[in-house]
Amino acid sequence: MEYENLTLHTDKYQINMMYAHWKNNSHNRQAVFDAYIRKNPFRNGYTVFAGLDRIVHYINNLKFTEEDIDYLRQQEENYEEEFLDELRRFAFTGNIYAMREGEIAFPNEPFIRVEARIFEAQMIETAILNVMNYQSLIATKASRIKQVAGNDTLIEFGTRRAQEADAAIWGARAAYIAGFHGTSNMRAGKLFNIPAKGTHAHSWIQDHDSEEEAFANFAEALPDQSVLLVDTYDTLRSGIPNAIKTGEMLETQGKKLKAIRLDSGDLARLSIEGRKMLDEAGMDHVEIMASNDLDEEVIMHLKMQGAKIDSWGVGTKLITGARKPALGGVYKLVAREDENKLIPVIKLSEDLAKVTTPGPKKVYRIINRRTNKSEGDYIALSYETVNDKPLKMFDPFFPQKFKYVHDYEAIDLLKPIFINGKQVYDLPPLEEIHRYHEEQLSYIWPETLRLLNPQTYYVDLSYELWKMKQDMMEKHSME
Amino acid sequence: MEYENLTLHTDKYQINMMYAHWKNNSHNRQAVFDAYIRKNPFRNGYTVFAGLDRIVHYINNLKFTEEDIDYLRQQEENYEEEFLDELRRFAFTGNIYAMREGEIAFPNEPFIRVEARIFEAQMIETAILNVMNYQSLIATKASRIKQVAGNDTLIEFGTRRAQEADAAIWGARAAYIAGFHGTSNMRAGKLFNIPAKGTHAHSWIQDHDSEEEAFANFAEALPDQSVLLVDTYDTLRSGIPNAIKTGEMLETQGKKLKAIRLDSGDLARLSIEGRKMLDEAGMDHVEIMASNDLDEEVIMHLKMQGAKIDSWGVGTKLITGARKPALGGVYKLVAREDENKLIPVIKLSEDLAKVTTPGPKKVYRIINRRTNKSEGDYIALSYETVNDKPLKMFDPFFPQKFKYVHDYEAIDLLKPIFINGKQVYDLPPLEEIHRYHEEQLSYIWPETLRLLNPQTYYVDLSYELWKMKQDMMEKHSME
Repeated sequence: MEYENLTLHTDKYQINMMYAHWKNNSHNRQAVFDAYIRKNPFRNGYTVFAGLDRIVHYINNLKFTEEDIDYLRQQEENYEEEFLDELRRFAFTGNIYAMREGEIAFPNEPFIRVEARIFEAQMIETAILNVMNYQSLIATKASRIKQVAGNDTLIEFGTRRAQEADAAIWGARAAYIAGFHGTSNMRAGKLFNIPAKGTHAHSWIQDHDSEEEAFANFAEALPDQSVLLVDTYDTLRSGIPNAIKTGEMLETQGKKLKAIRLDSGDLARLSIEGRKMLDEAGMDHVEIMASNDLDEEVIMHLKMQGAKIDSWGVGTKLITGARKPALGGVYKLVAREDENKLIPVIKLSEDLAKVTTPGPKKVYRIINRRTNKSEGDYIALSYETVNDKPLKMFDPFFPQKFKYVHDYEAIDLLKPIFINGKQVYDLPPLEEIHRYHEEQLSYIWPETLRLLNPQTYYVDLSYELWKMKQDMMEKHSME
Repeated sequence: MEYENLTLHTDKYQINMMYAHWKNNSHNRQAVFDAYIRKNPFRNGYTVFAGLDRIVHYINNLKFTEEDIDYLRQQEENYEEEFLDELRRFAFTGNIYAMREGEIAFPNEPFIRVEARIFEAQMIETAILNVMNYQSLIATKASRIKQVAGNDTLIEFGTRRAQEADAAIWGARAAYIAGFHGTSNMRAGKLFNIPAKGTHAHSWIQDHDSEEEAFANFAEALPDQSVLLVDTYDTLRSGIPNAIKTGEMLETQGKKLKAIRLDSGDLARLSIEGRKMLDEAGMDHVEIMASNDLDEEVIMHLKMQGAKIDSWGVGTKLITGARKPALGGVYKLVAREDENKLIPVIKLSEDLAKVTTPGPKKVYRIINRRTNKSEGDYIALSYETVNDKPLKMFDPFFPQKFKYVHDYEAIDLLKPIFINGKQVYDLPPLEEIHRYHEEQLSYIWPETLRLLNPQTYYVDLSYELWKMKQDMMEKHSME
């Protein structure tokens, strides 16, 4: 895939701050930023992290072209030529640690940690959040739909309603990570090696003299793709009977009708009646596909009503993250260089949940070896070791709530992606990301995974980190 | 701008239908499609059409690369080599008529009309809808915000929460069409010549030993960009007093502090108090900017509370079209070739509002010469002439509701964009699109423009078109 150069895909205030740092000669000071969320979307119990692939390519392709430099020169007359020279030489030289794509992630833990010159770390904030926020949002929405659909086939159908072209393809990829089986978008199919699936539109029927002729012509051309859309005129009186005729025609050629698709009306009743009609015609192998403004709630209700639907084409509500179209991921400074030392930084707020957790940190998933389930995540300062001693886990907001974990494995969730500007992480193929995601789900208790009123997953701090945060809060409030 | 090749940015079912048409040797038959919406978003009274610039570049760049062909060959084994050859030769050879960007558009009238070989017209549906739906959605949202903000400055701040990179830049452009004054996104600034604006982040403050030092360093570097974010510690006790000190320091250099920015807390109270403090310090020229999850409703409430805010940074809720993140634009076949003649096509539905209006059509805006306001839109078959006789306009759903318009100008809203595959329309610069949009707004009565419970604008059919539609509905229901 040819990735665009997204170097200028940043907010002007980043470039302004880079310039002001450069003017103040503070641009080479090290800084550490955490990218994280404060809340799961859709009142879900978890978030599926996605976007790393795009971010890695973005970082590798960072380069101000002469055109970009010219633009900056005329756009902002404050910028001095030596500063523009500094931009000409710009490349990412720092470290990036991140969760693997498909990871089950939670609020208030870093998904990504950036350690770099403030000049670089500031510059990349905007694009990192833009990508992480959208792709994680859609992977999470897809995961919810997957939970309801179980083993049914799920196809992403949203391109025409997606928020522009990038959203269509990266959303299709995010859905695949979380368990979708295919997409209608051919470009996403080609770029990411996602199975591309398609049936036909109402216009195919309307462009023929009769529905029967339209079905026959389509099935002749694509016998093993013969998913016939049966709702153009009257689903039960015309569509399904004509589809059955086409199926019979195919059978005389030793072929089989693949499926019918319902795209309007009462999907529960039509699928139940349609199933009967197909079965009575000896076509129990013909599947029923449904589409039309589906999401996890509609699918759940249809299943409750006994709908006989084998596969689901999910569009608008998946690809836009309907109801919660933005994940509020933030990127916060947690440490800065002062007199050649990295010192932790805190941002206070009247809202305790908005106070940042200072310092460069690691995130461990604490897997109980007896249950093979996670006891929660444990955030420690990056120099701390989490060894095999019993681990005290306590709620950072209610420290009197605690438990000891004895026999556990502490899995370090943040993998090194870039070290000193060099990519050290091999991007796995999409199929592997999906498998990784499924495996990680298995470590999470069902209470956290359920769609409605999930139990809050524990994201705890090490005692040392908690103490440091408390002390810094106290110190600041006394100032 | 280098536009990506989006040729494969289509649904697989389009390629399947193209293949089936090719197999049935019906691929060269002419077809006419209308792209339109059935409902305004956000319960608004109108929709701002946008996306044409991107669509024109998309059409001009349509070309299946050898890589694309290889992908199709392995992805779908049904596709025959001669079909792939047909794709290799693919270019758009038809006609496209469209509204100008910035047009005030309404449900149930074509925004775009495509006349082409079915092979081509089908292919381009997906990308046209993807682009038109998103860009028109955001232009409409921006237009609502603009109505509330009046003459205040509006800056688009949404990139980090946008649905991936394309949405960020095309959304910034759509907002500018509807009256925003700038964007934070530098790439959008460069690509579309939108003023790029920026302040600084909380991290700038946190990366210094004190707020005062941070402000001073920023203002020294960018004196005429000195918009200081005053809410990192305590807005009234620390932020604004420190900003005033910085302003005084700038004044000793003959420069002036530009603005302060509020990004949290009670924006009404803080801006009122802040205004007082600035005025008392003799800084009535210093503006107050606000950001933090703004939309038209929040801005309206802040104004009701007497907030003293001069400029607004609007992010998430604008760039995602929050509450209604997808515009449901559709693309429907309205005529097809049969025995060398173009015949109108209708799609029925139990829901009258979903019955398509058949035939190739023109859309006229009927401007009353006395009031200089629009009487409504009038859709006629493309061969009809709308001349200067009194025009009978009637509600197509309640034909007994009618009026005669006497002294009017009938403005043909659909401009020829491509004729026989050749672009015949010069894409105007963005500034001109914005001016066109403002001018068009002036023809619409305020009842239709208001944000809450707007009056439904008349979109009427010519008698001939109405009669044809009625007859076709009757004929079909008798079958």
